[in-house]
Amino acid sequence: MSRFLSKNYEKLVPYTPGEQVNEKVIKLNTNESPFPPSPKVKEVLSEAVIDKLNLYSDPELKELRKAIAEQFDVTPDMVFCGNGSDDVLAFAIMGFCGNGGKLCCPEISYGFYPVYADIFGVELEQIPLKDDFSIDINDYIGKGKNIVIANPNAPTGLALSFEDVEKIVSSNPDNIVIMDEAYMAFCGESCMELVKKYGNLLVTRTFSKSHSLAGLRVGFGIASKEIIDDLNKLKYSFNPYNLNTLSIKAAAAAIADNEYYDDKIAQIVKNREYTVTELKKLGFKCTDSKANFVFVSTDKISAAALAAELRKKGILIRYFNKAKIDNYLRITIGSIEEMQTLVAAIKEITEA
Amino acid sequence: MSRFLSKNYEKLVPYTPGEQVNEKVIKLNTNESPFPPSPKVKEVLSEAVIDKLNLYSDPELKELRKAIAEQFDVTPDMVFCGNGSDDVLAFAIMGFCGNGGKLCCPEISYGFYPVYADIFGVELEQIPLKDDFSIDINDYIGKGKNIVIANPNAPTGLALSFEDVEKIVSSNPDNIVIMDEAYMAFCGESCMELVKKYGNLLVTRTFSKSHSLAGLRVGFGIASKEIIDDLNKLKYSFNPYNLNTLSIKAAAAAIADNEYYDDKIAQIVKNREYTVTELKKLGFKCTDSKANFVFVSTDKISAAALAAELRKKGILIRYFNKAKIDNYLRITIGSIEEMQTLVAAIKEITEA
Repeated sequence: MSRFLSKNYEKLVPYTPGEQVNEKVIKLNTNESPFPPSPKVKEVLSEAVIDKLNLYSDPELKELRKAIAEQFDVTPDMVFCGNGSDDVLAFAIMGFCGNGGKLCCPEISYGFYPVYADIFGVELEQIPLKDDFSIDINDYIGKGKNIVIANPNAPTGLALSFEDVEKIVSSNPDNIVIMDEAYMAFCGESCMELVKKYGNLLVTRTFSKSHSLAGLRVGFGIASKEIIDDLNKLKYSFNPYNLNTLSIKAAAAAIADNEYYDDKIAQIVKNREYTVTELKKLGFKCTDSKANFVFVSTDKISAAALAAELRKKGILIRYFNKAKIDNYLRITIGSIEEMQTLVAAIKEITEA
Repeated sequence: MSRFLSKNYEKLVPYTPGEQVNEKVIKLNTNESPFPPSPKVKEVLSEAVIDKLNLYSDPELKELRKAIAEQFDVTPDMVFCGNGSDDVLAFAIMGFCGNGGKLCCPEISYGFYPVYADIFGVELEQIPLKDDFSIDINDYIGKGKNIVIANPNAPTGLALSFEDVEKIVSSNPDNIVIMDEAYMAFCGESCMELVKKYGNLLVTRTFSKSHSLAGLRVGFGIASKEIIDDLNKLKYSFNPYNLNTLSIKAAAAAIADNEYYDDKIAQIVKNREYTVTELKKLGFKCTDSKANFVFVSTDKISAAALAAELRKKGILIRYFNKAKIDNYLRITIGSIEEMQTLVAAIKEITEA
């Protein structure tokens, strides 16, 4: 730390992203899609578009907000886009919870929530999960604090029902409820339609998982116009041109291509069911994941040791050295060939 | 404003970006380059790269930081890259001046500095320019506050000499001095080599002006490793993957193509000299701009009226409705044909 940095950030512990590697490995550690993006993405990133990069991108992101709005049957003024959904979450937590505001989230969840709380001076309450890793919604009913919940939750993969989410949102009318639906495309019950009914709900999504565009950095939030106006006020005071022209065009083309992505998502869900079935045969405990990863544990070998052994075989998965989940592994769902290789490797390791 | 937004942001006035238009106009209002980016940019944005967008971009930005470091003869750990230089400035002002810290800047300068001060809770002193719009460096010697100066300054185009910048940096060893060199490529005297000598200097640059990549959103800052480590600490606590894969590859290819950009920058400088010469013939006052724009005034017609008349003729320039400069216009330097059309239009309007 330099002697110039504000003392407020002295103890700030940044988020640790999953490892990115160049080697030839089976990469099941950061919940990326195994499939390339829609061919429509290549079509719109034309030479003509690249030649016009001398001009600023549209700070209003009209083309992209319109394409997203159409998918979710809302108006474009209910859509905020960010440089990844991290950007959306950052602005939301800064704006609605920052400077001494109160926020709560599940204790086991996306590791970035506590980091945002720290950087923006938010008083964060981390609420323990039940022993089976599920969220007890009674902990959030009439809470009187802002709330952020990943649904499905990460790294557990467990999802809340539509009814339970509505109970949380409706019982906290004076606070923002952020439902982080990064993993929703893989068969959870989205609460998206509730944004028209409740002015305190912000639903965030990302192109990184379901839309094979982690490398493009685009996420979005949908909420009432008033909430979106607030987020835009912060964006225009921080970084007005927050998405580049290529991101705008590629993401707009991708989100409209339901045919391509419905098929890819169905394959991932099928590969997830295959993986769970096979790992259960090997004696693993697996949560009922609704995401593009599974969360698993075995008595035969510690999670840390299994992760290390798989790494030796060129397979990367995510191990969290964290209380309560340090004997679990989060494994991203890849192609069927990758999952077959994984299962075979785990069989070999655990039966050795 | 929704009832959920933190009261700290109630009076926040966001930055107003220059107008972006779709119509066929001569666009001389936001300091973009009239030239397309280097052909190398198209080469690196290959189909193979697009097909790999399912994988996260490199949060360490190794390829780009290495390419930038090579250009400026520093090490990659002295380079921080942002989603536009606005991103770099935001993190720097947040980190080094935020939460009640003190910052000063010229009163007439980049309109975003006061916005950053506002959003991050910085105590900002805006120091008046001299009557000829130049910066009096005595105002900044031994100031005892953090300092941000655009050099060349915007919208005046006037530049500080290398010696004057060194006096400011060396006389404020306990504060950060940010030299915003967004417009430096167009013949100012860069202070970049001073980053090796002074641990309190941060120099920021952008690909938006000199490198014809405003639509790509890439900027960077160069400073001591300690300063860069601090900026990374904030980045990893806000948005670790802040540049997408396409931006990383395109910007790395662009910055290495000196042959292409040296030629384009030389043309812009030549067009600037042409524009100044012709406008002076028409009785205009022009500052000695070292940027890719000129800052001009005439007694024949008010700046607001001239901007409006030019707009009717399909030429957009930037008028600032702001005390002390409200009879000046900032005109971006475009292609020679565009500047000839501009000069002819101004002649017609002012001689009517």
